[in-house]
Amino acid sequence: MKNSNYDIEILDTTLRDGAQGEGISFSLRDKLAVTEALDELGVAFIEAGNPGSNPKDIEYFKQAASLNLKNAKLCAFGSTRKKGVKACDDPQLCSLMNAETEVVVIFGKSWDLHVKEVLQVSLNENLDMIGDTISFLKAKGKKVIYDAEHFFDGYAADYSYALSTIQTAFGAGADRIVLCDTNGGSISDKINTAAWDVKKLMPETVFGIHAHNDCGLAIANSIVAVQAGFIHVQGTLVGFGERCGNVSLAALIPTLELKMSHRCLPQGNLRRIGELTRRVAEIANITISDDMPYVGTHAFSHKGGMHTDGVLKNSRSFEHVSPEAVGNNRHLLMSEVSGRAAIAERVKKIAPTIDKDHPVIISLAEKLKKLEADGWSFEGADASFEILILRELGRYTPLFTIEAYRVMSEHPKGAKIECSNAWVKVLVGGEHEVAAAEGVGPVGALDEALRRALTRFFPGLAKMRLEDYKVRVIDGKDATSAFVRVLIESTDGQRTWNTVGVSADIIDATRAALADSIEYMLINDAIPEAK
Amino acid sequence: MKNSNYDIEILDTTLRDGAQGEGISFSLRDKLAVTEALDELGVAFIEAGNPGSNPKDIEYFKQAASLNLKNAKLCAFGSTRKKGVKACDDPQLCSLMNAETEVVVIFGKSWDLHVKEVLQVSLNENLDMIGDTISFLKAKGKKVIYDAEHFFDGYAADYSYALSTIQTAFGAGADRIVLCDTNGGSISDKINTAAWDVKKLMPETVFGIHAHNDCGLAIANSIVAVQAGFIHVQGTLVGFGERCGNVSLAALIPTLELKMSHRCLPQGNLRRIGELTRRVAEIANITISDDMPYVGTHAFSHKGGMHTDGVLKNSRSFEHVSPEAVGNNRHLLMSEVSGRAAIAERVKKIAPTIDKDHPVIISLAEKLKKLEADGWSFEGADASFEILILRELGRYTPLFTIEAYRVMSEHPKGAKIECSNAWVKVLVGGEHEVAAAEGVGPVGALDEALRRALTRFFPGLAKMRLEDYKVRVIDGKDATSAFVRVLIESTDGQRTWNTVGVSADIIDATRAALADSIEYMLINDAIPEAK
Repeated sequence: MKNSNYDIEILDTTLRDGAQGEGISFSLRDKLAVTEALDELGVAFIEAGNPGSNPKDIEYFKQAASLNLKNAKLCAFGSTRKKGVKACDDPQLCSLMNAETEVVVIFGKSWDLHVKEVLQVSLNENLDMIGDTISFLKAKGKKVIYDAEHFFDGYAADYSYALSTIQTAFGAGADRIVLCDTNGGSISDKINTAAWDVKKLMPETVFGIHAHNDCGLAIANSIVAVQAGFIHVQGTLVGFGERCGNVSLAALIPTLELKMSHRCLPQGNLRRIGELTRRVAEIANITISDDMPYVGTHAFSHKGGMHTDGVLKNSRSFEHVSPEAVGNNRHLLMSEVSGRAAIAERVKKIAPTIDKDHPVIISLAEKLKKLEADGWSFEGADASFEILILRELGRYTPLFTIEAYRVMSEHPKGAKIECSNAWVKVLVGGEHEVAAAEGVGPVGALDEALRRALTRFFPGLAKMRLEDYKVRVIDGKDATSAFVRVLIESTDGQRTWNTVGVSADIIDATRAALADSIEYMLINDAIPEAK
Repeated sequence: MKNSNYDIEILDTTLRDGAQGEGISFSLRDKLAVTEALDELGVAFIEAGNPGSNPKDIEYFKQAASLNLKNAKLCAFGSTRKKGVKACDDPQLCSLMNAETEVVVIFGKSWDLHVKEVLQVSLNENLDMIGDTISFLKAKGKKVIYDAEHFFDGYAADYSYALSTIQTAFGAGADRIVLCDTNGGSISDKINTAAWDVKKLMPETVFGIHAHNDCGLAIANSIVAVQAGFIHVQGTLVGFGERCGNVSLAALIPTLELKMSHRCLPQGNLRRIGELTRRVAEIANITISDDMPYVGTHAFSHKGGMHTDGVLKNSRSFEHVSPEAVGNNRHLLMSEVSGRAAIAERVKKIAPTIDKDHPVIISLAEKLKKLEADGWSFEGADASFEILILRELGRYTPLFTIEAYRVMSEHPKGAKIECSNAWVKVLVGGEHEVAAAEGVGPVGALDEALRRALTRFFPGLAKMRLEDYKVRVIDGKDATSAFVRVLIESTDGQRTWNTVGVSADIIDATRAALADSIEYMLINDAIPEAK
């Protein structure tokens, strides 16, 4: 069963345990797309559904069979047989067979509390349920991965009973015995002790770990199991799962590969883990945490001046691995603390020959300091910063001017008009245009009116839209009037970019951020070499 | 220096290391509010700023000195002296003294790579810089916490040099030696080995740990240090910090207290950790991750049918600790049980005899659920929640109605009018009044017009003003239109209170929050017994 190229086999359960996370729901199409992403990454197993509890999953297994996967084997998931029925008569196990996968995952109970209070069967009956189920599946020719649910809680409560459940599973022919910290409540030294114990007592068994993150220890607990010699690791790529989630494989695999010399993925695939993690999150319509280890957008961001300075002298000084190794990028945040070296680094992408002592950099640094004192912040607004650079380089000619606008919000909503409406007048190459729009709120109305006025000149704008809008009230240099900072994320369906506007007037700050956003799109469409 | 009631002393650095996280920026008022929240929680130390690199922090320390903190000591943060100057002549150390804190935190280099390539001084000069700085501060009567930056990387690269840096610090009188995993790249067994080593080599030293989360191991690494006998733990409550963040104290402290029998906070305060973590996140205008251990909104959510069923049979079956222990609530996604006890707790402040099975509580719980699904959040808006309770209790008669308003924003600014102007019509006790106002932005204009219209009826409003205004875009239940949530802080010069409004229209959301804010002031002026 083992692929001899890797010494750690990864089982991803995004589509099963992950789908039990709050706010996660996958359509059949989503499930197929996630399957392909996980196969591209190169995990060994994809636990893809529970056909016994969700009949729709049968349809998934039918369609997935024709996906032509390169790396991963699909697994159907189910439980031990019901009490008082033969395994061959249990409808849930029949559904599992109907998924027609070479590998099945079966979970059973290890914790006496669960046997007595949740299953409500005798301790012996539970052992029979485990043994019968696995024998039945082995007789049908299946490879069986056995998930010992709540193993560590069971081991703490009654270690000899917990042991007897996995010995029964092993005796019945289970190919893998996976110890689960189902409630995520075990601290690492408990996992460590239990893992070494069972390895000693059952030297022939191939063990796996299944960790949840309720104490923030899912990664640590998976690592101690691997250090004890477990070769099978279950988790979900992004970290989806019940409550605080399963272990995030995107956060775990890089440590196993880069720091512990294990091989979990096909050669070279670690570099794609950032991209594929974002893809799976995207399919689930979930934004991954910016501060996620290795793959988060902030994972290699440097803001403090000493950090920025240090990274430029030697990246190892403030980076534990290279961002490229995991498909991520370094971000030197443009802030008053970050200094000329960081600015020059950023400008080099546009003008490669400019160094930190160039007059343009000196004047940019000055300007940045002044703008930040006024409340501007370019940390989350790379597109606005790029426009600022182009302006400073003398490479920028405004493509349009907003000559005037009026935005009106009313309550109650009139019989014939929405709550908000906007009127905008623009000037493009000597020609004027006016346009109006209405919307639920003033921002939407202004955005719409501005793009209507400009689309006559720049038809490409039709595919652009606002993705996100954030407002922050800040202390401007004048304490008596509050400044607001507006951050806008825009997209053309393929790329996204971020811009910023600051003003004492929220509408005016929005206008500035919108104007930058449109400029950025037009510049990058019109003169690709400026990028 | 140690408070003998606790065996672990917690240092929170939200205001220093946390503020170096991408997207985090605190105004002076924010910093004071965070200080108060951390003191309420009961951490031992608050590392609050770096007066040498940020002159604004001096003003903070001046104002914070009059906060009358119950539990926490403020610490100013700085670095070892510059090369080639005496400690007493180093302007950065002079700024540090000007903060006038009893305790200072000093960081110095432990890693030869940093000494040579970043500081660019000799290894011996670095030792002198550490020793001189600490001796100088001790001579001035300060308690000194020494942060050994990059200790674990330094220990791996040249352990005898790394050791000599902390031996120098200890010899010069440092009261705490804190080993930092500054890059967050150390795996737990490395931390474990180093921690036990230094404890054995320096048995007289009181050690601390400072972990970053770049491998997702910050919590595990803090725990192994505590298991080695370290008694000082640094982190940030929410987990803010450079790159992937510092260790989240909200995720760590519950494990230390509930599973490892340590005492980190004053008796009973662990139950407030959820509320205070959300408050600090709110001040930073950051949403905490739903799946955050212990305090996330999903941390005790049960979705899978077997999980929900199990929890109802015995909560231990799928919950590793009780949600109440950390001020959180269980959410059974299929059922209704959630939150009533917590709501009853809040209502008791107004109506002491009402318990969680009272019809008012049941109907409030229903209403709250619906409002939260629409994007409302009362965590940072106690005054709005109080009005909701009064309404439910039947104790509330609206004191005024906003019948209509119009808000207009224009650009460019006219010769005779400001950019924004507002017109409002109110109804008070059968009488109408209209008023107009202009302002730099629409929010200010609306606020001013509304208060003008009402001041004729309620002269007390003259002393009320807006203190803070925050806007967040949220996913409403309808994915196609973004909702905005406006949070307003108001003051009458003595008290401050917070209200919330939600709408697809930012002006309308503002109107709702403003109206609540005025109602709250009028209610509390008119019927003080309702408070």
